Amino acid sequence: MPRWKPDARQRLIMSAFRLFAEHGYDDTTVAQIAAHAGLTRSTFHRHFSDKRDILTAGQEALSRLLADGIGAAPADATPVAAVANGLARVSAEMTTFNRELSPLMRAAVDANKELQEREALKSVGMAEAMKGALVARGVPAVAARVAAELGVLAFKTGYGRWIDPARDEEPGTLGDHTLAALRELHAAATRLD
Amino acid sequence: MPRWKPDARQRLIMSAFRLFAEHGYDDTTVAQIAAHAGLTRSTFHRHFSDKRDILTAGQEALSRLLADGIGAAPADATPVAAVANGLARVSAEMTTFNRELSPLMRAAVDANKELQEREALKSVGMAEAMKGALVARGVPAVAARVAAELGVLAFKTGYGRWIDPARDEEPGTLGDHTLAALRELHAAATRLD
Repeated sequence: MPRWKPDARQRLIMSAFRLFAEHGYDDTTVAQIAAHAGLTRSTFHRHFSDKRDILTAGQEALSRLLADGIGAAPADATPVAAVANGLARVSAEMTTFNRELSPLMRAAVDANKELQEREALKSVGMAEAMKGALVARGVPAVAARVAAELGVLAFKTGYGRWIDPARDEEPGTLGDHTLAALRELHAAATRLD
Repeated sequence: MPRWKPDARQRLIMSAFRLFAEHGYDDTTVAQIAAHAGLTRSTFHRHFSDKRDILTAGQEALSRLLADGIGAAPADATPVAAVANGLARVSAEMTTFNRELSPLMRAAVDANKELQEREALKSVGMAEAMKGALVARGVPAVAARVAAELGVLAFKTGYGRWIDPARDEEPGTLGDHTLAALRELHAAATRLD
C-alpha cells in the first residue's frame, strides 16, 4: 500500500490535535498550529475561521451522511436496518486520515474538559440527525430515539475497535465493526428482561 | 401548600442561571450572581469555589443516587428493572427547587453553546454511572450500556414532562413520568424489527 500523504487541511487538523494534547486547547494558538504543520497562518485561514472551527470539522458532514443513508434505506427497512444503512454510508467515507487522527484526538480529549464536552455534544448531534431521518421515514418518535441511540453507541464502539492498535484491520473494515456492534446492541436491547 | 422558600445555595444557583440566560455565561461574574441573590461574595464562596462550580452542582449526587438505586434493586431484577430502581431513587430526591430551576436552566442552556456541551457531558456521566452499577450486578457490558442509555433517555423525557407548564403535576410525580417513559422506551427497544 502506498504511504498515505495528508493534504494541507488534514495536516492542520493533525497538528492542532497534537498541540492540544501536548499543551492544552486553551494554550495552543493558530500561529503554532500553522507552524507545526509547516504552513502559513493565511493557509490556516483558508481552511478554518478559527481554532474552535478545527473541533467541528467534519461534524456536519457526519450528520448529513447518517441522515442520507437512513433516508436511502429501502421503504420497508426496519428502524435498525435504516440506521445500519446510515452507519454504512458514514463508514464508507472514513479514511486512513480519520484512523491516524483518532489517537491524537483521543489524547487531546482525555486531557481537556472542554474537548470532552464538545465530544459529548457531537454524540447528541449524531443522535438528533439519525432520529430526525427516522421520523421522516414514519418511525414513531420513541422508537426513532432508541434506534438513533443504538446507532450512536454502535458507531462509537465500532470506531473504537477499528482504531484499536491491537487489531490490525484495514481501514475498509470500519463498516464491519460498526455493523457488528449494532447487531450486538440491538440483540441486547431486545432481551433486557 | 406553603410557599416554597429557597435557601442561600438555591438562591445563588437560581440567580446564576437567570443571569446566564440574560447576559450569557461568559459575561456573568460571581459578584453579579451574589448581588442578584441578595448575598455577599463571601457567602457565594462558602457554597461554590467559582462560577463553573454552579454548573456541576448536584451532578455527582445525581450519579451516586442512580448507582445506589441500581445497586439496591433485588438480586433477580432485570437490567431495566434495576435502572427503574435507580430512576425512582433520583426522582424521589427532586424537589420544587429543581422544578423551578428547570426553565431558567433551559433558557441559559439554549442561549449558550458552552452550557449545551456541559449538559451533554452530564448525560454521559449519568450513563456511565448507571452502566457501572449494572456491570457491578453482573449485567454484561453491552446490555448494561443499552439499559443505561434507556435510563438517560427516560430521565430526560420524564423530566421534560414533569416541568412542562402545560401539565400541572405535583412535584412528587417525577417518578411516575420517568418510569412511564422508561416503560415506553423499553417497549420500543424490544420491537425495533
